[in-house]
Amino acid sequence: MNASARVPEERPFDSGGPSLGEIGEIETLRRLIAVVSNNAPRGLELALGDDAALWQPAPGRQLAISQDAIVEGKDFRRHWTTPRRLGRKAVAIALSDLAGMGATPAWCLATLCAPAATDVDDVLEIQRGLSEAAAAVGCAVLGGDLSDIDGPLVIDMCVGGFLEPGHALLRDRGQDGDALLVTGTLGRAAAGLRVLRDGASDPRQGPHHARWVAAQLEPQARLAEGRALVEAGVDCGGDLSDGLLADAERLVEASGCAAELWLDAVPVDPGIREAFGDAWVELALGGGEDFELLAAVRPATVDGLVRAWPDSLAPLHVVGRLVHGGGVRLLDREGGSSVPLPPVRSRHFG
Amino acid sequence: MNASARVPEERPFDSGGPSLGEIGEIETLRRLIAVVSNNAPRGLELALGDDAALWQPAPGRQLAISQDAIVEGKDFRRHWTTPRRLGRKAVAIALSDLAGMGATPAWCLATLCAPAATDVDDVLEIQRGLSEAAAAVGCAVLGGDLSDIDGPLVIDMCVGGFLEPGHALLRDRGQDGDALLVTGTLGRAAAGLRVLRDGASDPRQGPHHARWVAAQLEPQARLAEGRALVEAGVDCGGDLSDGLLADAERLVEASGCAAELWLDAVPVDPGIREAFGDAWVELALGGGEDFELLAAVRPATVDGLVRAWPDSLAPLHVVGRLVHGGGVRLLDREGGSSVPLPPVRSRHFG
Repeated sequence: MNASARVPEERPFDSGGPSLGEIGEIETLRRLIAVVSNNAPRGLELALGDDAALWQPAPGRQLAISQDAIVEGKDFRRHWTTPRRLGRKAVAIALSDLAGMGATPAWCLATLCAPAATDVDDVLEIQRGLSEAAAAVGCAVLGGDLSDIDGPLVIDMCVGGFLEPGHALLRDRGQDGDALLVTGTLGRAAAGLRVLRDGASDPRQGPHHARWVAAQLEPQARLAEGRALVEAGVDCGGDLSDGLLADAERLVEASGCAAELWLDAVPVDPGIREAFGDAWVELALGGGEDFELLAAVRPATVDGLVRAWPDSLAPLHVVGRLVHGGGVRLLDREGGSSVPLPPVRSRHFG
Repeated sequence: MNASARVPEERPFDSGGPSLGEIGEIETLRRLIAVVSNNAPRGLELALGDDAALWQPAPGRQLAISQDAIVEGKDFRRHWTTPRRLGRKAVAIALSDLAGMGATPAWCLATLCAPAATDVDDVLEIQRGLSEAAAAVGCAVLGGDLSDIDGPLVIDMCVGGFLEPGHALLRDRGQDGDALLVTGTLGRAAAGLRVLRDGASDPRQGPHHARWVAAQLEPQARLAEGRALVEAGVDCGGDLSDGLLADAERLVEASGCAAELWLDAVPVDPGIREAFGDAWVELALGGGEDFELLAAVRPATVDGLVRAWPDSLAPLHVVGRLVHGGGVRLLDREGGSSVPLPPVRSRHFG
């Protein structure tokens, strides 16, 4: 039985319990460790009472390591979410970097900075969210740090995963002529952010809103999709944490080529065009946080990859190709005419 | 030539250049990566433009992993230090956890959260400090994150090191009768904090002040000492990030025994008794941040360990022993009478 099974309901922030300042950092850290211990997968040598945790890497595997912070007021607002959900989101964002490499998660560590007035149970709920999201993908929470802060809540996650040497998705492996593919649909998280910030302006959009807000507040890392790409022999790709335009730009810069994206091929979430009019382009291409994957695939293998792609995974869509030159161009369709690039919004909305 | 050789002088914070808000996170992150690339040790497979960095663990080694944050207003004040020095301190604090395990540093990642008004060059100077401190011990900076924050400066470091399986310092291996040893001298960092907070009250203490303030602002991790303990067969220990009393408490709790500490055996920094009177006990035993090591050593091997201890390392001193029971007692000397425990101050002073 893991910790989540013992906690009945997800509750909002600030439910009025004792604060971090009242309980103190040392005792709170103890409670944080207790939450983690309940969820630690077997097969890892943990030493939670020590200065560091110990982990035995599997022979011959490479380790992929990444670190990502979310900051209150920049990446989230407390009243939009629950502390448990926020913990799950912090893990998903960190795991997305492993998905973007095609790696399998192994461990993570979390630093929480919280004002002294924060409910201790909010901190524990964040940790429960972290733990359950990590456990769901076989990832151990090895530890981390807790600090009082005269400022906003910060969650900083370091994640490690493993992969076979030579079997990673790298941004610098793209070649002229490669097809560009994305997983899933784009724009949902950015649409969810608009709904959260501006409120629901059109009640007919209600059914869509819930899906968009969920995409913003509880993204899922495309771990299985990343591994499937690597297993299919794809060597070039990454995640879409900053939106298709920004991440295509990073890929072509690393690969020394140009990209053209075909607007009519972009798999945009249903309802976004009607709800946001022309702004749909900005949401789907310039908005971050969809945490889908972008891959560059040799033209000879694209059809086979798409045909063999399991239905259980987020669908693959060809959205453009790599060409000679530099930079990213947007066309209305394959072989069509240029369209102005929408503004790019970084993952931090503040 | 590493990055530090190209930057002439360490300068204070806020020298009046363009701000993080003006330059933007994406361009600043680019510059941060450029600083790191100059210092990356060879032998590691880095992929700095990708979602994660790749590292090939050496066959059969265990990985020790730890994460530590320092927060402005809690762990440091900008006007006390320089951004370069602060970067070195963040690394030293993180590395101390590896020293406390007897591990050899391999890599680190750093998340920087800084207000938009922060000079970009302050952020780069922090990164230069991080990079030079990491490079000095053969530790690669694999990456990290950068975020704008409506709050104080935060540096959160994740570090990984390796060790031979079964050759770690663990807190739960202590046995009744073990001698307790510390490296170096205690109290300097806590004395330095008093000097920084309260100003110099006695000009005759000037020569000491510089040493104490340096210990507070630029601690050194006892990496060589940790490895030497492990190589000598010591299996129980950790670092003193929270002070001798707090860390002895953690050790006896993990090991299921009690400790007695002998006040007259504690190696206190010269000048602290005169400068602080009776408060020297609190500084030496209750103050954190000395980042020395504490080890429990089987009685039959203590004399040999101390005799064979290289002069090039911080000296070892026996300061007490483990006994049956629980908790930590302070005696005026070995076999002497009890002395009240001084208050314990956590590493965060805020």
